Amino acid sequence: MTTASAEVFPASGTNGTFDPSAVKPPFFDINGKKPIHYGVLLFPGFQALDVFGPLDVFNSLSMLYHFPTKLTMLAADGSPVETSHQRAGNQMFSHPETNVSQSLIVDRTFQEQLDIQQAGAFADARGGAIDVLIVPGGVGTRNDMDAEIEFVREIYPDLKALLCVCTGATILARAGVLDGRRATTNKRAYTWATSTGPNVKWVAEARWVVDGNIVTGSGISAGIDATYAFVGLNYGETIAQELADSAEYVRWTDPDHDPFAKRWNAGNA
Amino acid sequence: MTTASAEVFPASGTNGTFDPSAVKPPFFDINGKKPIHYGVLLFPGFQALDVFGPLDVFNSLSMLYHFPTKLTMLAADGSPVETSHQRAGNQMFSHPETNVSQSLIVDRTFQEQLDIQQAGAFADARGGAIDVLIVPGGVGTRNDMDAEIEFVREIYPDLKALLCVCTGATILARAGVLDGRRATTNKRAYTWATSTGPNVKWVAEARWVVDGNIVTGSGISAGIDATYAFVGLNYGETIAQELADSAEYVRWTDPDHDPFAKRWNAGNA
Repeated sequence: MTTASAEVFPASGTNGTFDPSAVKPPFFDINGKKPIHYGVLLFPGFQALDVFGPLDVFNSLSMLYHFPTKLTMLAADGSPVETSHQRAGNQMFSHPETNVSQSLIVDRTFQEQLDIQQAGAFADARGGAIDVLIVPGGVGTRNDMDAEIEFVREIYPDLKALLCVCTGATILARAGVLDGRRATTNKRAYTWATSTGPNVKWVAEARWVVDGNIVTGSGISAGIDATYAFVGLNYGETIAQELADSAEYVRWTDPDHDPFAKRWNAGNA
Repeated sequence: MTTASAEVFPASGTNGTFDPSAVKPPFFDINGKKPIHYGVLLFPGFQALDVFGPLDVFNSLSMLYHFPTKLTMLAADGSPVETSHQRAGNQMFSHPETNVSQSLIVDRTFQEQLDIQQAGAFADARGGAIDVLIVPGGVGTRNDMDAEIEFVREIYPDLKALLCVCTGATILARAGVLDGRRATTNKRAYTWATSTGPNVKWVAEARWVVDGNIVTGSGISAGIDATYAFVGLNYGETIAQELADSAEYVRWTDPDHDPFAKRWNAGNA
C-alpha cells in the first residue's frame, strides 16, 4: 500500500506515454506525508447536491480521521459561483418572481491552478497541486462550457483520479478523457448527455462506474454513493461505512443497481 | 386549499395568542401570489449536507414548477460562512495539514431579517419576510449559539413553518420553540443533543417528526427525506415523488423507520 502512490501517480508531463486505463484503485497512498488534495470544478448553474453529496463525505472524512486532506474550490474566474438556473440562462421553467440560489466562494481560478500544476519541480508549489478533481453537473452544463472543458483536458494527465457526478460527465466527454472508457451519467438527461461523447462506452443501468482512474456517478443523489465507493476503494470499506453511518445514510453498495435507468427510459433500458 | 394560507398563517404580533401546535400542514397556499420565502440559518461549522440536502430539493422545485419561490441565506453577520470544523473551534480530530472547507455567501444578517419581519404593515417589506426557516446542524452547534438561538426565538412566531435537520434541533430546543413538542435529532450525538431541551418530547427512533408547524429531521442525510416529506405535505406527494425521481433518490417514506437509532444506541433504542 505504501508504494501504491508512486506506482499509480502519472508523472507530470508524461501525457504521451500515460495510459490511464491501466490505473487501478487505490489511486493514492492515504498514509503519505503530503495531503491528498481535492479540487472542485464550479460553474454557474451547478447542481448543489452534485457538489455537496461528495463534499459532505470528504468534510466528515477530514474531521473524523487523521489523513492530511486539502480542498480547493475552482472556477473560470474568482467570483462566487451560484446555483441559480435562471442566471445560468435557463429561463424556461420558473415563475418570474422566483429567486432561489446559493453562492459558493472560489479559492482559485482554473488558470491559477494550472500554473501551480505545471510548476511540478518546485516542492512548495506541488503542495498546491490537485490530486483528485470533482466535477458536478447541473443545468449550467447546457451553456458554453469551453473554459471547463479545456481545464479538464489540461489538468487530467496530472491527476491521480477524477470523480464526476450527473451531467458533469458531459464536460469530461467533451474534454475527450472518457473516450474508449465506460461511464455513466444522469438518466433523465441521458439522450442529450450521451450525445456529447460519441466515443464513450456509456452504461445506462449503473449507479456509478469505475474505469481506470475515473469514477462517474449517475444523476444527482448518485454522487453520494459514488463518493462512498471512491472512499471505500481508496481509504477502505470500514471507513466508508463508518462515514455513511455517521451521516445516517444507507449506501447503495451495488454499482449496477439502478432503477432510474428504467424510470427515465435511459438507453431504452 | 386556497384558503388554507389565511387560516394557518400566524399573524405578526400575535405571539401571545398563537398556538403553534394547532397549525397543521399544508402550512401555506402554494398558489398564492406572493412567493413562498425560504430562509436558511447559517453558522460557522454547519454540516454541508444538512443545508444542501434540503436546498437541492428546493432548487429543483423552483426550476421545474411554476410556484413563485424565494430563498435568503442568513447569518449573524454578513461575511461568508464556512463549513470548516477547525475554524469553528473543533481541533480534536484532523491532521494539522488538513484544510477542507466550503464558504457560502450570506444575503442578510439576522438583524436585517428581523427588521424586515417587523415592518409587517408595509407590503413591500413583507415581500422580504421569511415564511419558512431551515436550520441545519453541524459541529458548530457546540460553540456559542447565542445569536442563532435568539434569532430563532424572535422570528419563530412570524413563520409559517420551521424545518430543521440534525443537531440544528439543539438551536430550536435552546430557543424554547420545541418545548412540549415531539422532535428528533442526530442519533450519534443524541445524548448531548437531547440534553439541550429537557422539556422536549424527544423521539429516538424517527427519520423525521412533524409536530405543529415544526419538522425535525434526524442526522445529516435524513434532511433529504424530511424535506421530501415537507414538500409532500405542502406541494403534494406527486410533486415530491417527481422531484425525488429527478434527483435519482429513493425516498424513505416511513417517518418511523430509523435503523440508526439502534446503530448509535440513541435513547437506549
